[in-house]
Amino acid sequence: MTTPAKSLSRRSANSRQQLLKASIESFVTTGYHATTTREIAQKAGLSPAAMYVHFSSKQDLLFELIEHGHHEAYRALADAIQQADGPREALRAAVYAFTEWHATNHRLGRIAQYEFQYLTPENRARIAHIRKAIDASLRTILQDGARTGALSVPNVRLTALAILSLCIDLVRWFPSRMHSDPQEIASNYADIASRMAGI
Amino acid sequence: MTTPAKSLSRRSANSRQQLLKASIESFVTTGYHATTTREIAQKAGLSPAAMYVHFSSKQDLLFELIEHGHHEAYRALADAIQQADGPREALRAAVYAFTEWHATNHRLGRIAQYEFQYLTPENRARIAHIRKAIDASLRTILQDGARTGALSVPNVRLTALAILSLCIDLVRWFPSRMHSDPQEIASNYADIASRMAGI
Repeated sequence: MTTPAKSLSRRSANSRQQLLKASIESFVTTGYHATTTREIAQKAGLSPAAMYVHFSSKQDLLFELIEHGHHEAYRALADAIQQADGPREALRAAVYAFTEWHATNHRLGRIAQYEFQYLTPENRARIAHIRKAIDASLRTILQDGARTGALSVPNVRLTALAILSLCIDLVRWFPSRMHSDPQEIASNYADIASRMAGI
Repeated sequence: MTTPAKSLSRRSANSRQQLLKASIESFVTTGYHATTTREIAQKAGLSPAAMYVHFSSKQDLLFELIEHGHHEAYRALADAIQQADGPREALRAAVYAFTEWHATNHRLGRIAQYEFQYLTPENRARIAHIRKAIDASLRTILQDGARTGALSVPNVRLTALAILSLCIDLVRWFPSRMHSDPQEIASNYADIASRMAGI
């Protein structure tokens, strides 16, 4: 049985989701600065006043989306690494998961990467630890692999940067006429990253 | 001696340059849709009416910048390839030049890549041949290298895409605290691309 309180909180969670969905739509279509809170509220079927119950500003919405995007991408990466056995498998699994996430969530990913510059410095700082954790995850695999000889990586820091950069750039162009299957591109990028690490 | 006609045309060329410079500034800072032509004119020290002598719309300015960016990046790539001897050297030279261009011109490059979606379909189509020429240049090197055995490339199309993608993603993050030297990053990316092609 649904109590009135539960139903109310479910409706509230639903409005929140609608607002986030509307923000993705608007930010991807015209960019953060050209979007108004009025537009977002309207798209979500709410009044501007009802919107402020959930988010105090457009910046709040942007932060919530970008934090969520970073969290989810990192979780996909970390889960894949945890289940892998040894640096070679970990590298493949990490690149597969990170690529698949960015291909599948290319709209949210685009906001997380390209609208990142529009976060306030304080909000950017609140996400810095996730970005550092993503970098560190990949560097650790490459370092472990270089140490044990499973991988051959002349420049760990730059190779890690290049691999992440390759996966992230997907949000700029995916899907294209030639490539629209997240799993296919993930598998190919795992091959390419393996070559970058001397496999 | 400067004739009045020459001086007039020089002043006109100068205004044009000022408008393009002001557009880069505005588009990079707040994005295409949040920028007004009034703002651009003001930054360039011109009246809106004087601006329309040079560009009939904001879309015109965007097109001019993006076409110019694509042209220059392609020219850097093509020049480097032309001077190289054999697929291995051509690959290194191509990646070096394309990386260096995107690092040095990261603001114009950012507009060329991330505001590309805001071109009208007609304007996008007018640039398609440059984008195709860039792809084809890299694919040709990889194909030649695979044929002669100088390179080892399991998937030419995707490796070409990945290498270009890596260079282009520079405009998202360059310069960073760790990397701010275009030549240094160009040299490192040439190494990494060589590994992707089995060298």
